Amino acid sequence: MKPRVSIIMGSTNDYSVMEQAAKFLNEMEIPFEINALSAHRTPKEVEAFATNAQERGIEVIIAAAGMAAHLPGVIASMTSLPVIGVPINVSVDGMDALLAIAQMPPGIPVATVAINGALNAAILSLQIMANGDKALQVKMKAYKETLKEKIVRANIDLSQLSFEYKV
Amino acid sequence: MKPRVSIIMGSTNDYSVMEQAAKFLNEMEIPFEINALSAHRTPKEVEAFATNAQERGIEVIIAAAGMAAHLPGVIASMTSLPVIGVPINVSVDGMDALLAIAQMPPGIPVATVAINGALNAAILSLQIMANGDKALQVKMKAYKETLKEKIVRANIDLSQLSFEYKV
Amino acid sequence: MKPRVSIIMGSTNDYSVMEQAAKFLNEMEIPFEINALSAHRTPKEVEAFATNAQERGIEVIIAAAGMAAHLPGVIASMTSLPVIGVPINVSVDGMDALLAIAQMPPGIPVATVAINGALNAAILSLQIMANGDKALQVKMKAYKETLKEKIVRANIDLSQLSFEYKV
Amino acid sequence: MKPRVSIIMGSTNDYSVMEQAAKFLNEMEIPFEINALSAHRTPKEVEAFATNAQERGIEVIIAAAGMAAHLPGVIASMTSLPVIGVPINVSVDGMDALLAIAQMPPGIPVATVAINGALNAAILSLQIMANGDKALQVKMKAYKETLKEKIVRANIDLSQLSFEYKV
Amino acid sequence: MKPRVSIIMGSTNDYSVMEQAAKFLNEMEIPFEINALSAHRTPKEVEAFATNAQERGIEVIIAAAGMAAHLPGVIASMTSLPVIGVPINVSVDGMDALLAIAQMPPGIPVATVAINGALNAAILSLQIMANGDKALQVKMKAYKETLKEKIVRANIDLSQLSFEYKV
Amino acid sequence: MKPRVSIIMGSTNDYSVMEQAAKFLNEMEIPFEINALSAHRTPKEVEAFATNAQERGIEVIIAAAGMAAHLPGVIASMTSLPVIGVPINVSVDGMDALLAIAQMPPGIPVATVAINGALNAAILSLQIMANGDKALQVKMKAYKETLKEKIVRANIDLSQLSFEYKV
Amino acid sequence: MKPRVSIIMGSTNDYSVMEQAAKFLNEMEIPFEINALSAHRTPKEVEAFATNAQERGIEVIIAAAGMAAHLPGVIASMTSLPVIGVPINVSVDGMDALLAIAQMPPGIPVATVAINGALNAAILSLQIMANGDKALQVKMKAYKETLKEKIVRANIDLSQLSFEYKV
Amino acid sequence: MKPRVSIIMGSTNDYSVMEQAAKFLNEMEIPFEINALSAHRTPKEVEAFATNAQERGIEVIIAAAGMAAHLPGVIASMTSLPVIGVPINVSVDGMDALLAIAQMPPGIPVATVAINGALNAAILSLQIMANGDKALQVKMKAYKETLKEKIVRANIDLSQLSFEYKV
Repeated sequence: MKPRVSIIMGSTNDYSVMEQAAKFLNEMEIPFEINALSAHRTPKEVEAFATNAQERGIEVIIAAAGMAAHLPGVIASMTSLPVIGVPINVSVDGMDALLAIAQMPPGIPVATVAINGALNAAILSLQIMANGDKALQVKMKAYKETLKEKIVRANIDLSQLSFEYKV
Repeated sequence: MKPRVSIIMGSTNDYSVMEQAAKFLNEMEIPFEINALSAHRTPKEVEAFATNAQERGIEVIIAAAGMAAHLPGVIASMTSLPVIGVPINVSVDGMDALLAIAQMPPGIPVATVAINGALNAAILSLQIMANGDKALQVKMKAYKETLKEKIVRANIDLSQLSFEYKV
Repeated sequence: MKPRVSIIMGSTNDYSVMEQAAKFLNEMEIPFEINALSAHRTPKEVEAFATNAQERGIEVIIAAAGMAAHLPGVIASMTSLPVIGVPINVSVDGMDALLAIAQMPPGIPVATVAINGALNAAILSLQIMANGDKALQVKMKAYKETLKEKIVRANIDLSQLSFEYKV
Repeated sequence: MKPRVSIIMGSTNDYSVMEQAAKFLNEMEIPFEINALSAHRTPKEVEAFATNAQERGIEVIIAAAGMAAHLPGVIASMTSLPVIGVPINVSVDGMDALLAIAQMPPGIPVATVAINGALNAAILSLQIMANGDKALQVKMKAYKETLKEKIVRANIDLSQLSFEYKV
Repeated sequence: MKPRVSIIMGSTNDYSVMEQAAKFLNEMEIPFEINALSAHRTPKEVEAFATNAQERGIEVIIAAAGMAAHLPGVIASMTSLPVIGVPINVSVDGMDALLAIAQMPPGIPVATVAINGALNAAILSLQIMANGDKALQVKMKAYKETLKEKIVRANIDLSQLSFEYKV
Repeated sequence: MKPRVSIIMGSTNDYSVMEQAAKFLNEMEIPFEINALSAHRTPKEVEAFATNAQERGIEVIIAAAGMAAHLPGVIASMTSLPVIGVPINVSVDGMDALLAIAQMPPGIPVATVAINGALNAAILSLQIMANGDKALQVKMKAYKETLKEKIVRANIDLSQLSFEYKV
Repeated sequence: MKPRVSIIMGSTNDYSVMEQAAKFLNEMEIPFEINALSAHRTPKEVEAFATNAQERGIEVIIAAAGMAAHLPGVIASMTSLPVIGVPINVSVDGMDALLAIAQMPPGIPVATVAINGALNAAILSLQIMANGDKALQVKMKAYKETLKEKIVRANIDLSQLSFEYKV
Repeated sequence: MKPRVSIIMGSTNDYSVMEQAAKFLNEMEIPFEINALSAHRTPKEVEAFATNAQERGIEVIIAAAGMAAHLPGVIASMTSLPVIGVPINVSVDGMDALLAIAQMPPGIPVATVAINGALNAAILSLQIMANGDKALQVKMKAYKETLKEKIVRANIDLSQLSFEYKV
C-alpha cells in the first residue's frame, strides 16, 4: 500500500495537533505517511523529500510548522504537488506562523488552513484527491453529512436547558 | 468548452486584483468562468452556484472577498469541491479578510492564499487539477521553470550596478 | 408564549459564554429560544431559520460564533431583522471573530458587541424591542439603575481598605 | 417633522464618512438630525443631548468617532436608547476606534459596525425602527432586494471580459 | 488630612492591580483616596467627581480601566487636573485598553502608562506633585536610588550561578 | 527668560509633528526650548541633558521619537522630572513607538500620549506645571473653554447641510 | 580566563529564559559572564559596562529585556561591538519587546532574535566570533550536525505510531 | 578583490531599499557582491550559494525579503556564517516579513534588523567582521562619531526657529 498523503511536521511537539489529521485520513481509509522534517535543521532531507514525493506516488503534502514557519513554503518551492500548510500556535497566538505560511510570494502557493487546523488540512487533502476520483467524492459528501450530527446533538442538549421564559 | 475553474468575487472592485488569476488560467489554456456573487447581497444565488458547481463540471472554485470575507467559507459549506480563498485588501491592510478566510472552523476548510494573492490562487487550482492529469503536471513543471527567469533577469540588472567596491 | 429573541450559537462550547444572555432575558421576562446552528455545517438549516424568523414572531436575533465567525453575517444576509453578533474568543484572543463579525460590507450590518459580550447582546436586544414598547422602556431604565449598585458595593469594600495615608 | 434618528459625530472631519448615513436615511424618508458633539471637548452638551434624546422622540442614535472613540459609549451610558457606533479610521487603520467602541464593558452595549461603516449604521437604525412598524419592514425588504442589482450589473461587466479560455 | 491623589477604578476587579499604586503612595506618605467609579454605569457620579476634584484639593487623578477604557478620558474631559490612565488587561492582552486610553484626540490628554502599570502611575503622580515642592523632589530622588538595589541583589544571585566556563 | 519646558526630538523629521507643541506653548506664553537629541546617536549628550535639566529650571520634558522609540524612557531613567513621551508614526502605523514608550518597566514611568499627539503633550505639560501655580490653572481652564468653539463652528456648518428629511 | 561573551539581562526574572544561552556557551567551552543591568534603573552602570566591554576583551554582547525593551539598543549606542537582542515575553505576547528591539533607527543596529530566543542568541554569538577563528568554525559546523539528531529521533517516535492506513 | 559581504535579495524590487546597504559598504571600502535569489523560485541556486559562501571567502550574508520572508532563514539553515535578515515592507506594513525572519526556531538564528533596515544590516556586518580586525574596529568607531553630526546639524536648524517664547 503506497501512501497518497504525506504529513510533515517541523517538530514532534506538533504531533499533538497533527494527530487529528492522521486520525481523519485513517478513518477515511486513505493511505498516508507521517514524518518529522525541519526546513532549518535538515534542509537536505527536506529537499530530497520534496523533489521525490510526486514520483513516490504522493498526491498531496500536509506540512505543519510554528513560529517563522518556513517548512510548507520551502517544500512548495521544490515540488509541483499541492502543499497544505498548517500554522502551529507556538508563539504570539500563532499569528507568526499564519503569516509565514499564508503570505507566500507570487509563483509558489501554499494552501493555508486555520491556526492548528490539522483536521481541515486532512479534509482539504481529500477534496483535492477527489478531483477525478468518484469514490472519494462520495466519501467526501458522506463526511459532510456527518458534520450536521454534532449540531443536532447540540440542540438536544440546549432543548433541555430550563429557564422560565425559554420557549 | 466547459469551465473547469470558477472565479467568484464579492465585488467588481476585486477584479483589478483577480485579473491576475484570469490571465494565468488563460495562459495555461484552462477553461474558466468569472462571476460576481456576494455572500451577503445574493445569498440564494451563492447557494445555487455552490450546490451546482460540481455537476456543471467545475473542479476548483476560487473565491475572493475583502473585509469580513465570508464568501469563500459560505461556498465551501455548500460544496465538496476544494475552495481557494483570496483575502482582498479593503481595510486594515487585509488582515480582517485573511482571518475571516483562514480561520475556518473544523470540518469546512478553505485553502487560503496571501492577501491579494490572485496569481497563487490560480496556480494552486492548476496543482489541484493536475492530480491524476499528467498533461497538467507537465504544464505545472514547465511553469515552475519560468519562475527562475525573473531572477536571472534580476541578476543581469544587478550585475550592472557600479560601485567601486562591488566585486 | 412565542419567543421574541432567538439566540443562535455556532457550537455548544459557546453556551458557557452565551448563558449570560439567556439569564438576562429570563430575568427580564422576555420569551426567548436558544439553538445551535452552524453557518458552515448546517447551511440549509441556517437559511430556513433566517428566512422564517420574522414571520415566527422573532424580533431580534443574537448570533454567537468564534474564529472565522460567519454565522451572524450569513443570518443577516437572509433576514431584515436586526442581528446582534457576539464574537467568541476561540483563537487569537477573539480578534479573528471580532473582525469577521464587525467588518461586514456595505448593505448588511451586524450589530457587533464585545468579544464574549453575551450580556451586552441581550441588553441591546431589549433596547431594540423597547422601540415603541413603553413597558420595556421602563424595564430598561430600571435595569440601568441597578448597574450603579455594583459600584456602590465596590466603594463600600474600598472604604474598608486600611492604609496609614488613605484618607 | 420630528427627527427619529440622531447622527452625532466627534468632528466635522467625520462628515465625509457619515454623509453615506445621511443620504440613506434621506432616501428612505426617515426624518433625522445631524450634529457634532465631542465626548471630550463638550461633555456637558453630550450629557444634555443623551439624557433628552428619548423624550425628544429620537428612536436610535448613530455616533461616529475616531482614535480613542469614547463618544458612542459615553452616550450609551446616559440613555436607554440603542446606540450604534461607527469607528472612524483616523489612526492605526481604525483599529483603535473599533476596539474603543466594540469592547464596551458588561451593562452598556454599543451596536458596533465596520470601520467607516456609516451606511451600515443607517441601515441598522432602520432595522431597529422597523420593530413593530410594518411600513418600515416593507421598506427594509425592498432595500435588500436592491442590493442584488449591483451584483447583477457587476456580472454584466464581467461577461464582457474577453479571454480566449474564458467560457 | 486631605487627599492629594485620587485613585479611581472602573471595577473592584482592578484593585488587585491598583493595590501597587496605593502601597507606593502610602509608603511615600502621600495622602490619597481610592474609589470605584464607572464611566458607563455611574456617569453622573463621574461628572460630580471630576468637576469637584480640584477644589477638594486633589492634585493628580489616577484612573484605571480595562476593555474600551473610557474612564480616564471622560474624567480628563471634565477637569483641568492632570489625569494618569492605567490600561488594565481584561481582554486582548490589554491592547484595547491601551489604545482606548492613549489615543485621546487633540485637546484632552491622558498621561498613559504601561498595561497594568499601577506602580508607574503612582510614581508619575509623585513626579507631578514634586513640581515646586522641594520635599517631594528629595523623596523622588531617594526613591530612584532604591531602584538600583534590586539590580544589585540580582547580580549577587547571578554571581552564584555555577558553570564551568562562566567567568 | 529661562525655559520651563524642554522639547526633545530624536530627529528633525519629527519637527513637522512637534511644531504643534511649540506653537501651543508659545501661545500660552510658556518659555520653552526645543532641541534634537538621539538616545542612540548621542547618548552622552542625552545623559548630560537629562541629568542637568532640573537644575537648569526645566519643569517638564517632552520627548518625541519613532520606531524603537527609546528617547523618552532613557531620559526618564536619568531625571526625576516628569517626562512626556510622544510616539511618532515612522513605521507600522506608529504602533512600535507607542509600545516602546508606553510599556516602560516598573520604576520609571513615561507619560505617554497618542501617536503624533504633540499638542496633547504640550497641554499635559501645562497641566503639570499648573500644580501649585494658580495663574496657569486659570489659563488651563480658559483653554479648555476654547475647545468647545470648534464644535460650535462644526454645528453651524452641519446646520447648513440640505437634505429633504433632515430636520 | 577572560569572558568573550557578556550576557546582560534587565531583570533576574529573565534568567529562566536566558539560562539556555548560558548552557550553550558553557557546552561550547566559550568563556562568558552573566549580569543584570537595567537601562532604566541603572543607566550609569549600563554606560560603564558598554563603554568598557570591548577593552575588557568582550567580543559579543547578548542583551535580553521585556516590555519597552531598551537595554539592547542603549548598549548598542555606546559600543561598537555587535549587540544581540533577545525580546522577553513579559506582556502582549512579547510583541512590545520584539518591536522595541528590532525597530532600531538607522545607524545603531541590534541583531534581534526570536521572542525568548536565548539559545539562538548564543549560537549567533558563536557564529560572529567564528569570523576569523577556524576552531570555532569547526565547532559551529559540528553543532549544526547535531540539530539533525532531534529530527532523527522524532522520526523513530513517529514510525511507531500505529494506524491501520499509516504506511 | 574577493567579496567579504554578500547581499542577497528576493526580488529586484527590494533594491530600492537595499541600495543603502551597498552604499555603506562601498563607502567603508568593504568588497561586497549583490545578487537576487529567491528561496521559492530558485531553491537550488540558494542551496548552491549558501553551501559555498564560506569557502568563497564570504564572511557575512545580508538577506532581504518581504511577505513570508523565508530567504534569510533558508540560507541560515545551509551555512554556519552569520546571516543578517532585512524584512522588506511589501504587505501588512512589513509585519509579516518581520515575524517570518525574527521568529526562527531554536538552532538556526537570523540576526534580524528593522523593517527596511538595510543600512543597519550593513553596519552590523561591519561590526561582525571587525571581530579580530583592528582596522575595521577603528573604522567602526569613526563611523559612530559621524552619527552625531546629523544631530548637530539638526540643532542648528532648530536654533533658528523663531517663537516669541522660545528661549
